[in-house]
Amino acid sequence: MDGKMKAIIKHHRGPGAKLEEVDIPQVKDDEVLIRVKATSICGTDVHIYNWDEWSESRVQPPYVFGHEFSGEIVDTGTNVEHFQKGDYVSAETHLVCGHCPQCLTGKYHICAHTKIIGVDTQGCFAEYVALPAENLWKNPEGLPSDIASIQEPMGNAVHTVLNGEVTGKTVAVIGCGPIGLMAVGVAVAAGASQVLAFDLNAYRLGLAEKMGATAVIQSSEEDPVEKALALTNHHGVDVVCEMSGHPVAMDQGFKMVTNGGRVSILSLPTKRVSLDVTNDIVFKGVEVQGITGRKMYETWQQVSRLLQSGQVNVKPIITHHLKLEEFEKGFELMNEGLCGKVILHP
Amino acid sequence: MDGKMKAIIKHHRGPGAKLEEVDIPQVKDDEVLIRVKATSICGTDVHIYNWDEWSESRVQPPYVFGHEFSGEIVDTGTNVEHFQKGDYVSAETHLVCGHCPQCLTGKYHICAHTKIIGVDTQGCFAEYVALPAENLWKNPEGLPSDIASIQEPMGNAVHTVLNGEVTGKTVAVIGCGPIGLMAVGVAVAAGASQVLAFDLNAYRLGLAEKMGATAVIQSSEEDPVEKALALTNHHGVDVVCEMSGHPVAMDQGFKMVTNGGRVSILSLPTKRVSLDVTNDIVFKGVEVQGITGRKMYETWQQVSRLLQSGQVNVKPIITHHLKLEEFEKGFELMNEGLCGKVILHP
Amino acid sequence: MDGKMKAIIKHHRGPGAKLEEVDIPQVKDDEVLIRVKATSICGTDVHIYNWDEWSESRVQPPYVFGHEFSGEIVDTGTNVEHFQKGDYVSAETHLVCGHCPQCLTGKYHICAHTKIIGVDTQGCFAEYVALPAENLWKNPEGLPSDIASIQEPMGNAVHTVLNGEVTGKTVAVIGCGPIGLMAVGVAVAAGASQVLAFDLNAYRLGLAEKMGATAVIQSSEEDPVEKALALTNHHGVDVVCEMSGHPVAMDQGFKMVTNGGRVSILSLPTKRVSLDVTNDIVFKGVEVQGITGRKMYETWQQVSRLLQSGQVNVKPIITHHLKLEEFEKGFELMNEGLCGKVILHP
Amino acid sequence: MDGKMKAIIKHHRGPGAKLEEVDIPQVKDDEVLIRVKATSICGTDVHIYNWDEWSESRVQPPYVFGHEFSGEIVDTGTNVEHFQKGDYVSAETHLVCGHCPQCLTGKYHICAHTKIIGVDTQGCFAEYVALPAENLWKNPEGLPSDIASIQEPMGNAVHTVLNGEVTGKTVAVIGCGPIGLMAVGVAVAAGASQVLAFDLNAYRLGLAEKMGATAVIQSSEEDPVEKALALTNHHGVDVVCEMSGHPVAMDQGFKMVTNGGRVSILSLPTKRVSLDVTNDIVFKGVEVQGITGRKMYETWQQVSRLLQSGQVNVKPIITHHLKLEEFEKGFELMNEGLCGKVILHP
Repeated sequence: MDGKMKAIIKHHRGPGAKLEEVDIPQVKDDEVLIRVKATSICGTDVHIYNWDEWSESRVQPPYVFGHEFSGEIVDTGTNVEHFQKGDYVSAETHLVCGHCPQCLTGKYHICAHTKIIGVDTQGCFAEYVALPAENLWKNPEGLPSDIASIQEPMGNAVHTVLNGEVTGKTVAVIGCGPIGLMAVGVAVAAGASQVLAFDLNAYRLGLAEKMGATAVIQSSEEDPVEKALALTNHHGVDVVCEMSGHPVAMDQGFKMVTNGGRVSILSLPTKRVSLDVTNDIVFKGVEVQGITGRKMYETWQQVSRLLQSGQVNVKPIITHHLKLEEFEKGFELMNEGLCGKVILHP
Repeated sequence: MDGKMKAIIKHHRGPGAKLEEVDIPQVKDDEVLIRVKATSICGTDVHIYNWDEWSESRVQPPYVFGHEFSGEIVDTGTNVEHFQKGDYVSAETHLVCGHCPQCLTGKYHICAHTKIIGVDTQGCFAEYVALPAENLWKNPEGLPSDIASIQEPMGNAVHTVLNGEVTGKTVAVIGCGPIGLMAVGVAVAAGASQVLAFDLNAYRLGLAEKMGATAVIQSSEEDPVEKALALTNHHGVDVVCEMSGHPVAMDQGFKMVTNGGRVSILSLPTKRVSLDVTNDIVFKGVEVQGITGRKMYETWQQVSRLLQSGQVNVKPIITHHLKLEEFEKGFELMNEGLCGKVILHP
Repeated sequence: MDGKMKAIIKHHRGPGAKLEEVDIPQVKDDEVLIRVKATSICGTDVHIYNWDEWSESRVQPPYVFGHEFSGEIVDTGTNVEHFQKGDYVSAETHLVCGHCPQCLTGKYHICAHTKIIGVDTQGCFAEYVALPAENLWKNPEGLPSDIASIQEPMGNAVHTVLNGEVTGKTVAVIGCGPIGLMAVGVAVAAGASQVLAFDLNAYRLGLAEKMGATAVIQSSEEDPVEKALALTNHHGVDVVCEMSGHPVAMDQGFKMVTNGGRVSILSLPTKRVSLDVTNDIVFKGVEVQGITGRKMYETWQQVSRLLQSGQVNVKPIITHHLKLEEFEKGFELMNEGLCGKVILHP
Repeated sequence: MDGKMKAIIKHHRGPGAKLEEVDIPQVKDDEVLIRVKATSICGTDVHIYNWDEWSESRVQPPYVFGHEFSGEIVDTGTNVEHFQKGDYVSAETHLVCGHCPQCLTGKYHICAHTKIIGVDTQGCFAEYVALPAENLWKNPEGLPSDIASIQEPMGNAVHTVLNGEVTGKTVAVIGCGPIGLMAVGVAVAAGASQVLAFDLNAYRLGLAEKMGATAVIQSSEEDPVEKALALTNHHGVDVVCEMSGHPVAMDQGFKMVTNGGRVSILSLPTKRVSLDVTNDIVFKGVEVQGITGRKMYETWQQVSRLLQSGQVNVKPIITHHLKLEEFEKGFELMNEGLCGKVILHP
């Protein structure tokens, strides 16, 4: 498809981005072209927008960024067999090699050579995006485009929470950004007997309550560890989902987990973290899990079913709808923390 | 049984211990009295002997220390049903409460109220020891008393190595003290395709070779991480058994583990450890396991079978046999690191 | 405690039972005496009441039968430490040996020497029952006595449903007797995306709907396998809970399970069952699980939390409350199948 | 590559096959052409050769059959990226769809739309075979071509044995055809404490001994169940690998498995099998696993490592080497059961 489209361009190695008119991308043989209906802003996009150390080391402007979306296929490459024009899709954002030991044993999400759409390749903050067919996920008709767009981050929440037993367990979610909020909803849907939500931000704790948290704890106002113990008959919580990335909060997570409990870490602390390995991991017989991406495509299947059945209602998390052109307002909201997910509509 | 016995007494809150004559202990209703045939020195005993910070905070002299042994039952309390005089036994050293959530769900080894024989109660560096019948493990006739005595630490090795898949995997054992050496033997017996042994001490690496390590790496002489990558086609090792307790070595373990690999930590670092959680745990999707004690009594069953079948030959690890009276020489050997297991014979 | 009590006595080797006055049982050193508040009729009790082949081979009249109950401790043996007068309790009905390989590895529920309360020993269809303290489960205050009584069968349901992943899965419950109905509720609480309930009996299917089944299928009216396939996009169901004991229904379960799915069998077919092992198990890569009893006491913990949190509401299943004296009416209801759980109040 | 080649053709819907000269196959864009160095006869090939009911229902003559092989790539299709001329390869024989729920969740080996090379498509009993690149497994140089050829059936053995814990467990292998014999070797390598091999055929039991079985039981001469119990202290075996397909032997497997044990079925009984579900599965809490194919490609990795490390030595199982032209003799040997694996060399 020829022509021009609007796109948000990370145009230089510094803060900010620009809305520009660029060529609609050409599809390769194994790709499809998608008209974007909704695209959402991820914390990673904020890092790129603000231009931090990590962006400096990895990102190569100028390019289109963004990776969460839903849309409709408008063109298909010659080798594409299982998708066709008109299909309503979202996409897994990990581009994997298929040949490392991880890929060969089905653990694609930890491929040793992962590239990420919108970080290492052209992304979806645009009217159109071209993507490999093998990364597509077909959405059911009737799924609203904003909800379809946030399946990718919801996949992070699902992968974290469901990476072990939850039903009848007590679960702590530390850090109530959008993924933490989705984690609260997933834990509730999976039958956790208690879901404790921790954050410094009262606005986010309000959203956590809407998602079904059985208790919300503002970590600046009361001691998170004492509170967690008080709520669990002084046994500690069974499952800790660490989504704050903050060393103090992470340490609190290890203090509040029960002997033999699970600590699943999705967050990405910016520096090395000091842990009391002896007392908090070894003597307690704790299992610590590093969580990255989404199991391909087991997690997508779980996300899809939890949304379709209505078991998890993510609507309270989608707090803002903007036009693509209003992206600067979106990033401002994200930087202020006074929002759940922000959706951009091209 | 009345009378006197020789015992090694931790007599004061400071370095050293004394051989003394003390009363043979009286058995309670649910206890048995055991005549000790062989007892072995654990690293924990060395801490108590040397009197470090941990000992200062936990141990209450004067008392008999020591917790690894084998022996024969010579008396039984009135409520003891499943053991009798003449039985040849060793014992699990964790005394558990039976009523915390961990015990109620069969995870006795991480009981929230664990006491340890020879640390929190009277131990076995003596001619006789009285112990609860429910902690006994019946040994097969014909198992040499020195080997029977080291089943307890071998249980630590078995619990660490077998806490996940091993067959056809590459395994790194970091730290080749006696438990590390046993871990090498267990990994070989369980069908690991490579077993890499790491230590600073050439003497111990020599023992690791005898236990079947496919490669031994002296960490002062070559870069452990580079070597591990070179030996694994640059993919990294599948399973890391951390038994050194040294922060640098532990960090190297996290650097050499493959994406999706397992790091099982049995060691007890004396201080907090700084880890690169983001790159070494989260992005790699690593599973970190804190390992304590032995699964009661699944691990004992595994140990017993691996020894009886001859799959693991622990003889190379038993380097010294001494009389109980020669305990000071034993602790000297342990402090110098020029030994495997040291057995004391009362 | 001395005195007389009312009890339902299985008095002879044939159909029926009698209400009699008998001595209140004496507690042994490790037992407690419980005043029964509520006791419920299990299918096993119906077999004993009706006197079938199995009863003939196992049960030794005269004795008090019944094993599901809740009540208050009124006396304790001299060795009982963790319970006291006034405690509100129910009990695990498997009396286990503690010394077979299964018990030694924490799998008490499949102890090779299991005895069952009310089958092999004196039961609880009475005003008082004496039981070993180690089989007791402490109930939270405020849990209604009828609900506390049916925790034991609910444990069967929980053990069956939660013996593998459920969240986001499709679950079929075949056979909607009381345990099947509880299984429906547990699957819903655990986040199953669909719960299909199968039975011949329209009354029971009505109860299944109340428990949250997303579809109820009367197997005499429509083809269960076709219906299950139609409801799962022709992929088959992920988890089949077989609770009917009927060979035809069991076979249907194997036909409707998806490749790689799980079939958990709690039912006890009275004869050998003919299965298409090649096509329904091997080629499909199916996992078949035999389920017996409740994990001691992991399952009890799960049951307790699911009830306390209100995640599973069992009230619709408790259809009848009778006086102990009215037991004959209770067994009549059970034989007719026009009831959920029948509670007897001494 | 143009030209003619020799191939064994299943030429008609009846017993037998013919050696013929046919065109060398043309490679499609995603395929490679392989010059076959060694190809081995599978039991499935014998069914096709003999022409049984199953063949009648599935196979479409005329075509080249055979699916186990090793060889060298001599031509590559235009889309093939990760393989090149000269590569030494074998191949997974399951052609999977990539889009059913099983494939999407990484369980390719139970793809709902599996086709099998040499059964549903052209096979490798020939000088050349054309296959999709994505089914290839790269062999290490130096691996003998006959051993490389039998990695596929060894994958069945590995998948069966290693589908649960083995180290320190007792394992029964029922049926000592070539895959059963490999299973014996795999169980030994994985650290089973006992490996009991069962068959009617003394010749095969002799091979089982060579593979390391700790006991061989000729089921016609002694009672298999009694023997298994006698060898396991009357507890029963922990893991049963059913590879006979015989209903009586399968039933014996269920009788000899311990409570909580695992029965992994790889065999394909030709008729429905009658099982005592109540006593042998439910009350014993047994896990039954249907095993098909090889996990793609986790099993291949395990096979490759077990062979390269020398942990499993399959040489005793390769009993006959023939020229491709001598295939009739090969099938005769297979029908008589007086062989391990028969290798054909084109």
